[in-house]
Amino acid sequence: MIKIALDAMGGDNAPHALVHGGVEALRASRDDLELVMVGDEATIKNELARHFRINELPISILHASQAIRMDEAPAAAVKLKKDSSISVAMRLLQNGGAQAMVSAGNTGAIMAAALFILKRLKNCRRPGIGTVLPTEKGPALVLDVGANVDCKPEDLLQFAVMGSIYFARLHDIVHPRVGLLNIGREDVKGNELTTKAFALLRASRLNFIGNIEGSDVLAGAADVVVCDGFIGNVVIKFGKSLHGLFKSNLNRLVRKYLFSQIGAVMMKPTFDGIRKLFDYQEYGGAPFLGVQGVCIKAHGRSSPRAIRNAVLAAKKMVAEKVNEHIQQQLELGCC
Amino acid sequence: MIKIALDAMGGDNAPHALVHGGVEALRASRDDLELVMVGDEATIKNELARHFRINELPISILHASQAIRMDEAPAAAVKLKKDSSISVAMRLLQNGGAQAMVSAGNTGAIMAAALFILKRLKNCRRPGIGTVLPTEKGPALVLDVGANVDCKPEDLLQFAVMGSIYFARLHDIVHPRVGLLNIGREDVKGNELTTKAFALLRASRLNFIGNIEGSDVLAGAADVVVCDGFIGNVVIKFGKSLHGLFKSNLNRLVRKYLFSQIGAVMMKPTFDGIRKLFDYQEYGGAPFLGVQGVCIKAHGRSSPRAIRNAVLAAKKMVAEKVNEHIQQQLELGCC
Repeated sequence: MIKIALDAMGGDNAPHALVHGGVEALRASRDDLELVMVGDEATIKNELARHFRINELPISILHASQAIRMDEAPAAAVKLKKDSSISVAMRLLQNGGAQAMVSAGNTGAIMAAALFILKRLKNCRRPGIGTVLPTEKGPALVLDVGANVDCKPEDLLQFAVMGSIYFARLHDIVHPRVGLLNIGREDVKGNELTTKAFALLRASRLNFIGNIEGSDVLAGAADVVVCDGFIGNVVIKFGKSLHGLFKSNLNRLVRKYLFSQIGAVMMKPTFDGIRKLFDYQEYGGAPFLGVQGVCIKAHGRSSPRAIRNAVLAAKKMVAEKVNEHIQQQLELGCC
Repeated sequence: MIKIALDAMGGDNAPHALVHGGVEALRASRDDLELVMVGDEATIKNELARHFRINELPISILHASQAIRMDEAPAAAVKLKKDSSISVAMRLLQNGGAQAMVSAGNTGAIMAAALFILKRLKNCRRPGIGTVLPTEKGPALVLDVGANVDCKPEDLLQFAVMGSIYFARLHDIVHPRVGLLNIGREDVKGNELTTKAFALLRASRLNFIGNIEGSDVLAGAADVVVCDGFIGNVVIKFGKSLHGLFKSNLNRLVRKYLFSQIGAVMMKPTFDGIRKLFDYQEYGGAPFLGVQGVCIKAHGRSSPRAIRNAVLAAKKMVAEKVNEHIQQQLELGCC
């Protein structure tokens, strides 16, 4: 039985999407999942009351009197609000009351709480945040996407090790292809950071395929794309906005032309296919790798389906002992 | 009269697209443009013979016995091939035989030749390469996109100054909005480089609007987007591939559904509008800023239309005295 703490208060669609998604995750599981919903008890009870036959599901509520807003300064908010749903969930993890936590709240606050309360895994230099992207050849994990804006080569090596283990276990691939995000594919290309990281990766026992370019990421050249948190953050946000720009202009132009309006209706199955391909909801949230506990950050605008998938990903991370395998590799010295 | 050297041998579609595009640029000009086509004389003559009434146009040919391939190591190729079309064009610029050069060839080789032969502008720390992107609010210039992979804060300030002058002159905007590409919009956000660059930009006399995120670029938040060449390169390549991924999947899905095939025909004006919006051909190539001469790099896969627009952009850079204005600002100490 795996017990997961679900922060019911974080994210733009809280508590509805969280509670609904949690219920869906339980219904998709076979008696091997239990949820602790963390947050304001009355609010969660109200929300649960909207679902049928909820008493049959293994749900408990853990009251937290505070919530951290999406726009609060992370470290200060975590220090100030000791009883926030994020910190209460982390403390439950720490004392063994749950084996994983899922939140759609303030990313920086979740990371700060994880560092203050759970601490880093032994030998982990810096925990990283991964994001799963759709590519031509299936999902790929990009990390770090924002936790570390100034990295050393050794940090990138650890991201590669942690990301590789996560990807292997979550996506059932024995030796994930690890690529180093760079300005060209040749071995000698790069800045100071990537040139040194390249040498470390080449010397490791990872399935390192070498440097990849910006254009290789979505072509699916690598399963695990390693980069510093600054570039990962900018690229992920840029990518999401390009999709949005395309869509808004498509809608604008469709409205402009009568034939296009009819054409758009006829093309619905095609557009549904495209949406599904680019849909972050299918991809189970962003894992925090390198902390003493399984933490998954769901997108702030998560739908119930996205939350369901994030909870199921957390469950798989626990079942597959991802953190235990990462700890083992870090103790071996990472290669 | 403005005289431009056009490298007829560089790029995937050389010499056809180059010669054709050059002819189109001349036809779009009113007797104030002259072209020197640089490359193998016989090849260029053959290509010119395919056009009508070519004798009426002010075209001359400057023979160059060598060409640098797209995949050659830049610095070595420039040193080895003294008579490459790129170097011959640069020397023409240097001795005053032309006021600008346009090439669709090996970017690194063009930059290396510009640095060896033309040299940097006085007080310019490092020349940068800009790329014009389409956004929701019109074109935006992103720089640097690859010339400098490890930057100091002062480099970013100079990119901002040079980009600002280029954008103001080429797009007729008095005070272009300068944004610093970063991981968040708040003033305090960033890594070591951007935090320091932020302070320099804030203290300058530029129209600095502050930090912008990856998702703000295509929304058109800034006219000039400043970043180091590593991140600029990765973001630009990533963006181009996302568009490609979208298109290839659209085509695949359209073929799958009969109704979608009919719908796609009806939606043609919409799709044409989208293509035009994302079309790099409309945007006149990538300026090299900070070297003693006007150099524009057209996309390697440039069509004749893209070459035409790159030549016209080079002509405007000369007419508007962009480099003279940049030199003046650099001598004033950049703020």
